Amino acid sequence: MEIQVPRGMRDFPPQEKLQRDILTNTLKKHFERFGFGPLETPIVERYDVLSAKYAGGAEILKETFRLTDQGGRELCLRYDLTVPLARFIAMNTDVKFPFKRYAIGTVYRDGPIKLGRYREFYQCDCDIVGSDGVLADVQCLQLAIAIFDDLGMEFRTYFNTIALLKAILREEGVPEGLLERAMLTLDKLKKIGADGVRKELGSEGIAADTVDGIIEVSSLGSNKDRADALAKRYGDLPGLSRIKEILDLVPDSRVEFDPSLARGLAYYTGVVFETFLEGSSVTGSVSSGGRYDRMIGAFAGKPDQYPAVGLSFGLEPIMDALKEKGTSHEKAIADVFVIPIKTLKESNALAQDLRAVGIRADVDLMDRGVSKNLDYASQLGIPHVVIVGKRELESGEYTLKNMRSGEEKAVARERLAEILSADGA
Amino acid sequence: MEIQVPRGMRDFPPQEKLQRDILTNTLKKHFERFGFGPLETPIVERYDVLSAKYAGGAEILKETFRLTDQGGRELCLRYDLTVPLARFIAMNTDVKFPFKRYAIGTVYRDGPIKLGRYREFYQCDCDIVGSDGVLADVQCLQLAIAIFDDLGMEFRTYFNTIALLKAILREEGVPEGLLERAMLTLDKLKKIGADGVRKELGSEGIAADTVDGIIEVSSLGSNKDRADALAKRYGDLPGLSRIKEILDLVPDSRVEFDPSLARGLAYYTGVVFETFLEGSSVTGSVSSGGRYDRMIGAFAGKPDQYPAVGLSFGLEPIMDALKEKGTSHEKAIADVFVIPIKTLKESNALAQDLRAVGIRADVDLMDRGVSKNLDYASQLGIPHVVIVGKRELESGEYTLKNMRSGEEKAVARERLAEILSADGA
Repeated sequence: MEIQVPRGMRDFPPQEKLQRDILTNTLKKHFERFGFGPLETPIVERYDVLSAKYAGGAEILKETFRLTDQGGRELCLRYDLTVPLARFIAMNTDVKFPFKRYAIGTVYRDGPIKLGRYREFYQCDCDIVGSDGVLADVQCLQLAIAIFDDLGMEFRTYFNTIALLKAILREEGVPEGLLERAMLTLDKLKKIGADGVRKELGSEGIAADTVDGIIEVSSLGSNKDRADALAKRYGDLPGLSRIKEILDLVPDSRVEFDPSLARGLAYYTGVVFETFLEGSSVTGSVSSGGRYDRMIGAFAGKPDQYPAVGLSFGLEPIMDALKEKGTSHEKAIADVFVIPIKTLKESNALAQDLRAVGIRADVDLMDRGVSKNLDYASQLGIPHVVIVGKRELESGEYTLKNMRSGEEKAVARERLAEILSADGA
Repeated sequence: MEIQVPRGMRDFPPQEKLQRDILTNTLKKHFERFGFGPLETPIVERYDVLSAKYAGGAEILKETFRLTDQGGRELCLRYDLTVPLARFIAMNTDVKFPFKRYAIGTVYRDGPIKLGRYREFYQCDCDIVGSDGVLADVQCLQLAIAIFDDLGMEFRTYFNTIALLKAILREEGVPEGLLERAMLTLDKLKKIGADGVRKELGSEGIAADTVDGIIEVSSLGSNKDRADALAKRYGDLPGLSRIKEILDLVPDSRVEFDPSLARGLAYYTGVVFETFLEGSSVTGSVSSGGRYDRMIGAFAGKPDQYPAVGLSFGLEPIMDALKEKGTSHEKAIADVFVIPIKTLKESNALAQDLRAVGIRADVDLMDRGVSKNLDYASQLGIPHVVIVGKRELESGEYTLKNMRSGEEKAVARERLAEILSADGA
């Protein structure tokens, strides 16, 4: 038997996991600053509940891991974090609204495995349920800005509303039944260009010039120019006033109104947004979301009662971008490693004193010699070593070695905590 | 269809989850101070790998949730965090030893549901793999002390070694085949008393007086008395020197050498420990563990190569005890709630300024009146409210209301961040 993890799943060893923890802690910090609270739901859901609304689409159901408990109940592993949110709301309609929750957790899809596609992977979502106000939309945009700013990344966030896009396409004469098709094609504008979009529309039986207005407006230089040009061309379209309110509340040059943006998911009903990094080899979106006013209500049996807007962050692409930038904060397992030379008791006591002031301190547990211990500390990237032998005990001065510079100095025992703390340990 | 979670599983709503996060963050902080790094493994394991060594015993396998992927591979949900650790080591024998990892994650058991028993529940483990040194044992004890001290709890930690206990029972004439039986019975000494133990031993066909020595020694007052009495009675027993070394390295009156302690699990090979709270209605152990020098090696096919010692913390009983003490840090979702009176833009800008200095700030998203907003903030336990109307904009002084005391005062806008920060927001 070969010892393996399940296909499409991974271990995160300590140094990798420490880096990921730094990112998730940054995300949590900003979610909480915006008044989102953590909601944790089980990894396992009842299959009848999860499949009832086909909320994720029939293809996703095909990729759902299913299991049965010993009582014969049909269960499954969750395939996203949005359906469990809807299920939670349906079970707890007495929570206070707006209900603002974030969730960072693994989801499961038994699908084909390609580069960067896993069967167990993280999703990181925040959602506001119960408000259809513009400020709810705005908080999602502000949150994305706060997070990518804090991560030190250059970015651009595009937004639009589904109502506006549909209204324009209707004005241009696209038949009701082809609206979604037209939107999905238009969404590829950045990728395949204007000619590509026209060609694809033609093959769908939609007049190629129906998107000329949008393409022309999209090429204008500023958010205000784009909004004004649309108003001039089409008059007071549904969705346009929301665009203007958002632009007024989020005066940030990195936020761009993009009338061609549609997003791929059929359940969006209002604002949609998508963030891309600049100057990074990560070209896909790192955050996206939008307003979906009907999905949760459909679950709870009250279609109009639970407007919602939410945002997802892509942990994997953001980690990739952080690693590329070299700011992924490679973090050692410990700040200092104590090497005893027949001074186990005193070395342990020193480590305990350092821990008491918050320094991450470890001690040789293998009874190894000094040079093997130095190798070990070096391989683990531990930045400082303290050597404690009989000579050190007698003088009261311990040998402190900086593993990066190689510098060694004698330091009074009672000053070690202070020096190591000051050095960022 | 009734909307439910799977039987034996739970949601953790935001305020409950925030409290649990405080506890897990405390645990992580101390794990990291002792040089443990986080290891994350998948929720799903291959069934053949997990069941190969029956590491958790045949009963646990019976309670394992099983599933099959679309490629026909037999998988299962992990039933503990120790088997995945052993599997990780077996797949990564090139990691540096000692390998010190912690893991806090959910595990799954499809068993009967009683009060406080769930089918999805958390385990919280730290383990040191690769060292059989006394300091590895000692770090586990020190870690438990550091954590329960930080949580402000009164506790007592008992320890023993399996080697010592077996040696005494052999000296007393217990046959090899009945050693484990005798140990499991003796382990109940605190629960069923000396007479209960004698009676149960008798019914197992073990002479009732074989444990008289241990019972007598256990009643002695100090750790030193107990160790000395054993040495006097039985001479230089295997395991006794390790006890003395531990006592020398951990001079803490709350740590007690208990020669009757055996722990229930057959895989322990060396030191065992167990922590109980004092003055709490939580009477079961809140942390336990021990040395298991053969289990990981059996997995890796090298039985003697991976000595290990580890410690588990019981998140559920510790949460219960914290709630009972009233120190479970009930934490509101936000520090301050801004109520706009037709001042959406300025209220949003204020919230953004507060967030920028780390204050958790939210704003009305429902366009509700002041009194409804005050109700909402009060129901969510948000400690401060700022009211921003036209009058406030004109004067530059905003109304700050302390929701606990009811006190209201006018505060210059630019001083709000400072005042709210100082107030612990």
